[in-house]
Amino acid sequence: MKILIIGGSGVIGRAVHETLKDNHEILIAGPHQSQYAVDMTSTESIQQLFQNTGELDAMVITAGKTHFEPITKFDTAGYQFGLNNKLMGQIRIVLEGMAYLKSHGSFTLTSGVINRDPIYGGTSAAMVNGAIDSFVQSAALELPNSIRINAVSPTVIEEAWDRYGGYFPGFEPVPVKKVALAYRKSVEGIQTGRVFYVEP
Amino acid sequence: MKILIIGGSGVIGRAVHETLKDNHEILIAGPHQSQYAVDMTSTESIQQLFQNTGELDAMVITAGKTHFEPITKFDTAGYQFGLNNKLMGQIRIVLEGMAYLKSHGSFTLTSGVINRDPIYGGTSAAMVNGAIDSFVQSAALELPNSIRINAVSPTVIEEAWDRYGGYFPGFEPVPVKKVALAYRKSVEGIQTGRVFYVEP
Repeated sequence: MKILIIGGSGVIGRAVHETLKDNHEILIAGPHQSQYAVDMTSTESIQQLFQNTGELDAMVITAGKTHFEPITKFDTAGYQFGLNNKLMGQIRIVLEGMAYLKSHGSFTLTSGVINRDPIYGGTSAAMVNGAIDSFVQSAALELPNSIRINAVSPTVIEEAWDRYGGYFPGFEPVPVKKVALAYRKSVEGIQTGRVFYVEP
Repeated sequence: MKILIIGGSGVIGRAVHETLKDNHEILIAGPHQSQYAVDMTSTESIQQLFQNTGELDAMVITAGKTHFEPITKFDTAGYQFGLNNKLMGQIRIVLEGMAYLKSHGSFTLTSGVINRDPIYGGTSAAMVNGAIDSFVQSAALELPNSIRINAVSPTVIEEAWDRYGGYFPGFEPVPVKKVALAYRKSVEGIQTGRVFYVEP
């Protein structure tokens, strides 16, 4: 398969690449990729990306940011940031990308643990993850050409524990190799409309 | 209690009013209410509303719109409409309203059935409802002054069946009186961080 990983230089993206590369042709996109540069907050940038990639068998999105802040300090801009970046960034890729996916091709989006296991400062991340999980379950029923769509919802990752572990007291991190398996199941398997939770 | 119902002139809002009015002081807000006019898409309008109402014991929000369209026809503006109206409209009220709620006061938001039981054209509504359900579960853990927050997620309503029933094939509608009970449980009860599903 010809597979595009958007966010392919991040911790998860690199692990997905590693898991898939022996059996597939992998294209890596991201804000700093020379050949497949993309800004997820721009429809025009996404359209340009797909003109560069041409037709694909699968798109994996492992990119997307949200703002963290206690709710008493949050303002609407803080929530809008995550909606525009992680949520609408992925939705834009689905809207523009469906015309570039072959029949039975797949989208794999990324949500995360914070909506099912909340942490301090995480109301925006919870909202965005809940939106993504709900979106894929609904979108799977409407996408044309037997295109599939799933989300991977990992808990915090061992390889990012140094940076983020302090925000996740009592959480047990998972190795990113285990997270990558969920993306592989989504890409190479037949399931659609699923949220693949990755827990230890 | 002094209770503000935002969206109080809609089908659900009127039923919530009816259920609560014998035991509480009710203020009705909405876009066309002369005394408590409010535009949920405007932070300034919401701030003005709370200057008019003063301190409250509970806020119930039964307002919020999303766009319906098959995913192949959706554009980003269609998704942004629901995010800005139903989702961020309710979030704005929480952000501005928490300073006007008494200790142990409550917010009751409204999501809906479409994220757990998808319908054609409903990818935006699913996304927004999922975001709201996740938000209240996270926000409940962070709100100050023992303020509570819940969401009511009703299925389609008998009193709106003439208008919307065609979009919900095989759904069994519920009488709006039953939906109003869930709001009453949220307002008069002690629970927080809950999504109250209303099904027949």
